[in-house]
Amino acid sequence: MAVETVRVKNTGLRGVTVADTKISYIDGENGVLIYRGYRIEELAERSTFMETAFLLLNGHLPKKSELEGFEAQVVQARELPGFILESMEKFPKGTDPMDVLQASIPMLAMADPEVNDDSREANVRKAVRLIARTPAAVAAWHRIRNGRKPLAPDNALSHAANFLWQLSGEKPGAEIARDLDLCLVLHADHTFNASTFACREVVSTNAHIYAGVTAGVGALSGSLHGGANERVMKMLLEVESELPSVDDVGPWVMKRIESGRKIMGMGHAVYKTFDPRAKILKEMSRRLTAKAGHPKWYEYLARIEEEGIKGFAARGKPEINTNVDFYSGAVYSAMGIPIDIMTPVFAISRISGWCAHIIEEKFAEAQDKPALYRPEAEYVGNYCGEVGCTYQPVPDRG
Amino acid sequence: MAVETVRVKNTGLRGVTVADTKISYIDGENGVLIYRGYRIEELAERSTFMETAFLLLNGHLPKKSELEGFEAQVVQARELPGFILESMEKFPKGTDPMDVLQASIPMLAMADPEVNDDSREANVRKAVRLIARTPAAVAAWHRIRNGRKPLAPDNALSHAANFLWQLSGEKPGAEIARDLDLCLVLHADHTFNASTFACREVVSTNAHIYAGVTAGVGALSGSLHGGANERVMKMLLEVESELPSVDDVGPWVMKRIESGRKIMGMGHAVYKTFDPRAKILKEMSRRLTAKAGHPKWYEYLARIEEEGIKGFAARGKPEINTNVDFYSGAVYSAMGIPIDIMTPVFAISRISGWCAHIIEEKFAEAQDKPALYRPEAEYVGNYCGEVGCTYQPVPDRG
Repeated sequence: MAVETVRVKNTGLRGVTVADTKISYIDGENGVLIYRGYRIEELAERSTFMETAFLLLNGHLPKKSELEGFEAQVVQARELPGFILESMEKFPKGTDPMDVLQASIPMLAMADPEVNDDSREANVRKAVRLIARTPAAVAAWHRIRNGRKPLAPDNALSHAANFLWQLSGEKPGAEIARDLDLCLVLHADHTFNASTFACREVVSTNAHIYAGVTAGVGALSGSLHGGANERVMKMLLEVESELPSVDDVGPWVMKRIESGRKIMGMGHAVYKTFDPRAKILKEMSRRLTAKAGHPKWYEYLARIEEEGIKGFAARGKPEINTNVDFYSGAVYSAMGIPIDIMTPVFAISRISGWCAHIIEEKFAEAQDKPALYRPEAEYVGNYCGEVGCTYQPVPDRG
Repeated sequence: MAVETVRVKNTGLRGVTVADTKISYIDGENGVLIYRGYRIEELAERSTFMETAFLLLNGHLPKKSELEGFEAQVVQARELPGFILESMEKFPKGTDPMDVLQASIPMLAMADPEVNDDSREANVRKAVRLIARTPAAVAAWHRIRNGRKPLAPDNALSHAANFLWQLSGEKPGAEIARDLDLCLVLHADHTFNASTFACREVVSTNAHIYAGVTAGVGALSGSLHGGANERVMKMLLEVESELPSVDDVGPWVMKRIESGRKIMGMGHAVYKTFDPRAKILKEMSRRLTAKAGHPKWYEYLARIEEEGIKGFAARGKPEINTNVDFYSGAVYSAMGIPIDIMTPVFAISRISGWCAHIIEEKFAEAQDKPALYRPEAEYVGNYCGEVGCTYQPVPDRG
């Protein structure tokens, strides 16, 4: 194991290459996102979330029989163990859905008879169960907190349609179901983002896949990561109520940029140009907000984007563009998804990438890979030399 | 923000300095561990876990009034919210205690009225509640899985003594209580180990302290991290049952080293000489195993250590020594702590360090610190250029 000594303090590991991956690739300069060789635009147009999840986990697009087998396994695993629903019934009704989701993943571990089988095959089976049950857990909590009974899955419905059914009790139309499925494809993976790296960090100790995914849910809950779509939606609702006309957006954006405040959903750690996912979501939000009777949402967002890009560029920041979170909030709202369920929807998709990365981490080929991620920190605190500071008994302390 | 481009692939971030810390310091060459300026030996001899937890969180040893206030806050927060106990009653009885603990931390978040207050003061108060309630959660699950009722805390007992009481239903003697307290001091922090870094990674997204600690529990559950003490104890019981005499240890160790197998509890990512915590635990294990009627445990362990150090040195690995996990299993067993509660005991202690690191991460002074930890990976997978691989419709796939 070749250890270099490197100082990359306070850079959040930006630009620090820590591992190989075969799962996804981003060219941030050119706005390219690739899963297992396939461009996100191609998958968005032609694939489905089930197929994409299979691709991420297994490295290739499934043959017909493989896809049917995979879909059948997911459908079969949809039902949540009863004790999880019974526990949720006890939870304080005001709890944030992401906290419930973070508690639910270790509960899913409790119900998995293969939890301690760490073979690759068992991990793929556990991933299938996680992909199947995470939406059910999100939907169940939303029902329970509203005093409703959780709904049984409808095995005739697609993954996305069944989630909307279990969440709302209404069977979605084909267009909405297909659009949500496409959103799940778009959010499924994004290389070593903060939540995915948290998953890999945790399982690098040999912890099981559920322990890793639980960490991913925690990281995603942060307002700088998965929580960003909610913040965009809140910003949009604020703008809509405060600005009488779309033409007021320009001055609002300028004021915001000049005062040093962020515009939610703009800027990205990796993309220095457009985010290819944002383009697709922009078009979807135009269509869905019109259909839902909120065409203004799209108009405000498109104008914020336009003025924001201009404004940042004028201040020497031409790399600031809209990211995946910018239009997704309006898309989800138009689908009837409540604001605090938006980050859980992100999780329902990203869980496929998390599981793929966890399995890659567990079975990495690098022979000399050390057991676990353990960086260094520079000690800049209280120091009395190696002999240590003198311990004063309590009564003698000043 | 100055970003360098660095490749430290497959090194698990060894030797990569990612941040400043004022919490603890390790000199791995000389076997030195310091918390906030104080040597671990000094704290082990003279401090208590409550005082050490205060020190880690606040940066200084408490004055008498501060210590009394801190202890009173912890005692007051010991009681678990009822819905957590009710949920645990529903959990499958065979569940690993670490999975229950990982589910319990987000449940503690649900019960915390300050969960969304991200001020430093509120985070310290949340840390106090986490330190108080984690032992209660571990003890409650152990009672429940054995079909017993969880016990109410005894406010007259110290932190360590109360844990043993809630776990076993017996009030421990003063010696055992003091020894467990000392173990908690020894395990309280260890700079950027895998679980602590997982905590920091998660909260670097602005996720709350409970989300971070939940990730820490997950990382600690791995057999290469917190799970190591359990593996040492299992190895010891195997040795005791297989080797008729302590004199058989030498050949057993040699065989194990020659076949390339690890000796559990030997070797450490950071210490290249003795682990100062292991020294203290060695002496404690000698005393406690004799008292518990298992003096052989100490004899076997001491001989494995002696032969192991000799054996590894002879093979050019003089840096391999016993670590903190080597003697702690025997110590905990002598205290009557079941094997699968040993890693949870580690968590009960380390939670103080996790919370201190989470608060440090949230309020880091570095002005140019980027928002979150997001390393890079090198894409080595399927690649058809930026245009992407051609998507074949399902029927056309080979």
